Amino acid sequence: MVGRLTLWGIENIPEIGAGDDLVSIIAHAIEAMAASDDGAALRDGDILVVTSKIVSKAEGMQVPIEARDLAIDEDTVRVVAERVHAGGTTKIVETRQGLVMAAAGLDTSNVPDGLALRLPRDPDASAKNLCAGLRERTGRKIGIIITDTLGRPWRVGQTDAAIGAAGVQLVDDLRGGVDANGRPLNVTVTVVADELAAAADLVKGKASGIPVAVARGLSRLVGDLDTPGARTLARLGEDDMFRFGSTEAYAQGYEAGMRARATAKEKAR
Amino acid sequence: MVGRLTLWGIENIPEIGAGDDLVSIIAHAIEAMAASDDGAALRDGDILVVTSKIVSKAEGMQVPIEARDLAIDEDTVRVVAERVHAGGTTKIVETRQGLVMAAAGLDTSNVPDGLALRLPRDPDASAKNLCAGLRERTGRKIGIIITDTLGRPWRVGQTDAAIGAAGVQLVDDLRGGVDANGRPLNVTVTVVADELAAAADLVKGKASGIPVAVARGLSRLVGDLDTPGARTLARLGEDDMFRFGSTEAYAQGYEAGMRARATAKEKAR
Repeated sequence: MVGRLTLWGIENIPEIGAGDDLVSIIAHAIEAMAASDDGAALRDGDILVVTSKIVSKAEGMQVPIEARDLAIDEDTVRVVAERVHAGGTTKIVETRQGLVMAAAGLDTSNVPDGLALRLPRDPDASAKNLCAGLRERTGRKIGIIITDTLGRPWRVGQTDAAIGAAGVQLVDDLRGGVDANGRPLNVTVTVVADELAAAADLVKGKASGIPVAVARGLSRLVGDLDTPGARTLARLGEDDMFRFGSTEAYAQGYEAGMRARATAKEKAR
Repeated sequence: MVGRLTLWGIENIPEIGAGDDLVSIIAHAIEAMAASDDGAALRDGDILVVTSKIVSKAEGMQVPIEARDLAIDEDTVRVVAERVHAGGTTKIVETRQGLVMAAAGLDTSNVPDGLALRLPRDPDASAKNLCAGLRERTGRKIGIIITDTLGRPWRVGQTDAAIGAAGVQLVDDLRGGVDANGRPLNVTVTVVADELAAAADLVKGKASGIPVAVARGLSRLVGDLDTPGARTLARLGEDDMFRFGSTEAYAQGYEAGMRARATAKEKAR
């Protein structure tokens, strides 16, 4: 048996503002829960799954709502696809964090009126700070995953994924391993960090104001502080078969086809 | 607090063959676990997360390995993208189940030598049969999610997702709802079924031969047998911004651009 996995949300984390000390706030909330329930005290091998929103808020990534479009442009490395619809324009971009997502992750839900919130500038660095701080404060060897909500092609809706991490092994690389029949599992790289981010969303919940969950039962994944971060989960550049939306790629091809034909005619003349 | 979520794998499910009665096999394995651990007996509101592989095996979806390419073609509605690399050709297709995945889901891991395995023909129907059978056999109002392992653009590796379901609400549609600050959550549709599929993979594990997990703590999602199936999670056709790979869409555009230019020249002559 691989084991039992248990997840629960940390109650009573207050609204976070710029400059707040997340290590202290999270540790305090966990201690308060543990006061009435021994099982809620952190243990070695626990993984804390933290919604990026509170990290952004603590790091002062709020911008006035009027500056939202400018912030999207600043956080955009490359526009992947755009679509105009009744509610406005959906712009899917590659962000400087190596994520492909709508509006560069700029968010107005669960953000005070008049503000929009950018992603943490470097979510892996944020995770490392949190992990180091909480390990020191609690004396427990815990791991940190920072999550955000991502849409995806071909399927409706969104799921949570890992955008930052520290002290946690992110993938179970089964390439070179064998299955239960001894046959090679030659293409499977299970991204346990994303599976854990998704799992934790089931006990956090966007409407309930619970931004941190604890996952217990995967201590095999918890390791040194300098394990590779979530940035390594990006598959961009040459390996990306969906570098542009179909409409955008078609338009680029169309232009090139027109030009090539014109050049061929010139030469034939 | 949203609550506590606990997941564990069902031990001692034997290798499944064509014609096996999955309801009986799963129920028996759960009863055997419950004999030594009361907590392992099913309860109302438990959700069973079942790897599609054992469903395919029970439904006789094995084909000789020589017939693999033919089976891929038969299960393909549309080729989305193709890439030739050192190990062969990766073909991403839309399957008749409404999934976009490599090789139409044909699989040779954890399959006896000389065979490849197709996806269940109708995973929602398979889920409904399992759910009805297990509800009747156990007297418990449980839900069923059937999972498979999917790659995704822009991120490395794979995660498990829901390809069939019965008796479970698949999405938390937050559109029209409000966040903790009372602001509209106007674009968020959380696909809890995929999050649950991902969570369960963390206790199943591809190398460990545990094909079924129980998730306890989400009874709010468990409902009537005729809730919408996982087929409703497909976002294809007009709404699909990534209908083709970038290379494929570019090539289509290029051809069209060449033709358009040629036609314009003809007319101008």
